[in-house]
Amino acid sequence: MIRAAQRLTLLSSRSATTLQRDPRFAKLEETDIKAFESCLGKDSVLTSDIETYTSDWTKQFGGKGSIVLLPRSTEEVSKILKYCSQRKLAVVPQSGNTGLVGGSVPIFDEIVVSINRINQQYEFDATSGVLKCDAGHILQELDERLAPTGHMMPFDLGAKGSCRIGGNIATCAGGIRLLRYGSLHAHLLGLTAVLPDENGTILNLGSAIRKDNTSFHSPHLFLGSEGKLGIVTNVTMTVASKPLSVQTAMLGIESFENCKKTLLLAKSRLSEILSSFEFMDEATIECLEENSQLKRVLESKTPFTILIETSGSNEDHDQEKVSKFLEECMETGLVVDGSVAGSAGEAAHMWSLREHAPVAVMRDGYVFKHDVSLPFDNFYKLTEEMTKQCAGLAKRVISYGHLGDGNIHLNISAEKSTPELYAKMYPYVYEWVTKHGGSISAEHGIGLVKLPYSHFGKQPEERELMRRLKDLFDPNGIMNPYKFI
Amino acid sequence: MIRAAQRLTLLSSRSATTLQRDPRFAKLEETDIKAFESCLGKDSVLTSDIETYTSDWTKQFGGKGSIVLLPRSTEEVSKILKYCSQRKLAVVPQSGNTGLVGGSVPIFDEIVVSINRINQQYEFDATSGVLKCDAGHILQELDERLAPTGHMMPFDLGAKGSCRIGGNIATCAGGIRLLRYGSLHAHLLGLTAVLPDENGTILNLGSAIRKDNTSFHSPHLFLGSEGKLGIVTNVTMTVASKPLSVQTAMLGIESFENCKKTLLLAKSRLSEILSSFEFMDEATIECLEENSQLKRVLESKTPFTILIETSGSNEDHDQEKVSKFLEECMETGLVVDGSVAGSAGEAAHMWSLREHAPVAVMRDGYVFKHDVSLPFDNFYKLTEEMTKQCAGLAKRVISYGHLGDGNIHLNISAEKSTPELYAKMYPYVYEWVTKHGGSISAEHGIGLVKLPYSHFGKQPEERELMRRLKDLFDPNGIMNPYKFI
Repeated sequence: MIRAAQRLTLLSSRSATTLQRDPRFAKLEETDIKAFESCLGKDSVLTSDIETYTSDWTKQFGGKGSIVLLPRSTEEVSKILKYCSQRKLAVVPQSGNTGLVGGSVPIFDEIVVSINRINQQYEFDATSGVLKCDAGHILQELDERLAPTGHMMPFDLGAKGSCRIGGNIATCAGGIRLLRYGSLHAHLLGLTAVLPDENGTILNLGSAIRKDNTSFHSPHLFLGSEGKLGIVTNVTMTVASKPLSVQTAMLGIESFENCKKTLLLAKSRLSEILSSFEFMDEATIECLEENSQLKRVLESKTPFTILIETSGSNEDHDQEKVSKFLEECMETGLVVDGSVAGSAGEAAHMWSLREHAPVAVMRDGYVFKHDVSLPFDNFYKLTEEMTKQCAGLAKRVISYGHLGDGNIHLNISAEKSTPELYAKMYPYVYEWVTKHGGSISAEHGIGLVKLPYSHFGKQPEERELMRRLKDLFDPNGIMNPYKFI
Repeated sequence: MIRAAQRLTLLSSRSATTLQRDPRFAKLEETDIKAFESCLGKDSVLTSDIETYTSDWTKQFGGKGSIVLLPRSTEEVSKILKYCSQRKLAVVPQSGNTGLVGGSVPIFDEIVVSINRINQQYEFDATSGVLKCDAGHILQELDERLAPTGHMMPFDLGAKGSCRIGGNIATCAGGIRLLRYGSLHAHLLGLTAVLPDENGTILNLGSAIRKDNTSFHSPHLFLGSEGKLGIVTNVTMTVASKPLSVQTAMLGIESFENCKKTLLLAKSRLSEILSSFEFMDEATIECLEENSQLKRVLESKTPFTILIETSGSNEDHDQEKVSKFLEECMETGLVVDGSVAGSAGEAAHMWSLREHAPVAVMRDGYVFKHDVSLPFDNFYKLTEEMTKQCAGLAKRVISYGHLGDGNIHLNISAEKSTPELYAKMYPYVYEWVTKHGGSISAEHGIGLVKLPYSHFGKQPEERELMRRLKDLFDPNGIMNPYKFI
């Protein structure tokens, strides 16, 4: 595992500074451990075998954190944050620990506060479609619990088997169906959060009501707050109706311009039933063939492959819409090859290609991952640019992502990370994105990794507002230091 | 016109206090007027014939405000707020002035800052579906401008011909299609706001990108902020595709329980094409017959009338879905009478009944308007309760609203406002709503009218957070005083 301090030297090589532990924070003492044990119980305080909490799943980030707290309730979180605030102990809140930007692990000796055990409450009102649950529930488990009622979680992402709803809120998770169901802002109604202040203040914000204009809409401030403002312990949100008919198809396309035209045609012809429009370049398909057991679906090796999904309530209607759409795609030459899934197994195969891509590329050795948004006209140009830029140094440059949302995942792999390849990429890639009207982080967040670039495209006034909001919620600055801001 | 001070005596009669002008605010002087004239130009500073700005359209609220400023740009708003902040002059920001809670008019001598003339920029990207425009655009005009591109604004409300997008943001406007397209949180991507601080700070928050996790999601804090945090001058948001097929139907239903069951059936059978599920009780239809030229659509006078609308991309499919749904409604006895609009004119007639209800009831003389959210089980019980409660004093108790969103508009009319009727209603109606799990303001906001009840159902910690957020954005407290908080 690359330790954070080393890694940070690399990441912030522009400024040639290395991150230092902030001396304002107290160091954990034996009396602190005793205090936590007495307030949470011994089994909720871990001081050994904690590497699954102190390093992330990419194994790239992780500090020397020596203690993990596993509270079981909002009240216990309140006691922890009150104590840490008074003692000036730094804290890293942790949910499923599936992030990709080093945001959920300690960088130095921060105390890990995991929400994994806060998973008791689950209340779903099928009439209103409103779910209220503890933040420690795993996304996929929520989805499975909702299924018998004809409902589903309104977002879905690769990490669904491990990520937890509290972390989804804290990172404003996007995923593969945002195109249809909107971001979490479209669904969040209320939440409980504990503030890192001297009272461990418990905030119950919002309500279980779809329309409620009686207060500032402050729950939304926690979406994408990356654990800097407080710890979310309970969530109230709307969910979606589970579709009765799902159609899946894969399309082979010769040019990116035609990918864009196909998206616009899909928006028009599939309209209200379009639920995904996912994108892979040929390098991604080749990577899957080489690094996984998965086989390509379309034999004609077109430069681009699109995965389309519709979700609706009437199978006949949806099949007719999809057939007509595909006919039009083929007749106009937008699409040169295509396959409609004839069974759940075939649909699963199509999705597994898309979902397995992040894992497959990691088998190359080392991967630099870039999650960016770009306007459609520049969507694929970045990949072409970086392929040139990293020629001879990268093993592979592949791109896949959510074309319907303008969100591309650019992955640059090599056998191992080298300073030469690093220098070719940073800060060039994020400068290019900013210059071309994009966002340097579409859905993964800033965390530790993108902190050196977090000012790109931001005005000083916005950054000052962030600092002031941070101070308001976290007066001692103990929450998730060294990241995001 | 009932002057605010008088009115407030009535509104806060529980505590028997009358609102006083806050002596912390400076009084407008001749030198101030000269300063505004020199910085905005004389034609942007009005000091006579300003009643359309200083009183609202209900004619119930309005203060003695003696000056209206009509800036043309964000920069001019910045100059105004910088000046007012330094001089401690209180300000009321005003958009279309179509609110129903007295939120957009001066209560005493606040300076009206209207955004009506900030309506130059209009940029729409049909590929991404993202609109960026100045805040002074009228909602309906935006809708009409989008129409030729196959798009529409993703929300719609009765005041669309006069309300402006800046005010829609500041009040988190709901309306008749929230059920389908979600609240404004689902659509807002970014905004420009001017802060009432000593620099007149201009904040450009968010971006034109659908997925952007690079900062706190602070634009959302302005949704429903009722002009307390700053003045929104520019908005970036997603819009919706204009449906190619719209079906409209009116249903007569015998019991509220069956209304609820019909909603659940509609959600299941019409699913992705359901765009409205509006509710009127028989008293509303009778009021329309008595107070307007409009005729009822359904001859059988059922206790409840539902207006259903679908929006989709395929006329055949949508008609088939609607027919099947209606057959099932009739066969199961959920619905006892129904009519599907066979032409645009018939659909317009159905909608005009629903949309004309607020105006029709005002012809009774005086109307106490209540905009609340309630869980479905208590949705109509409030109306029954208030009908009993106000018997002999009210001329009419009618309810209509957005059943699909759990939002009901309860209107209690009389020839004129009397203390006896008032005492029967307040605080009883809001206590009842709070006790039964509802919200005392679904979409109209708190403003002046509901301020005495704004603490209902709120914990002190949330109210303290509101105050601290308010202080952060508006350190001198000059923005829209006497309201909301």
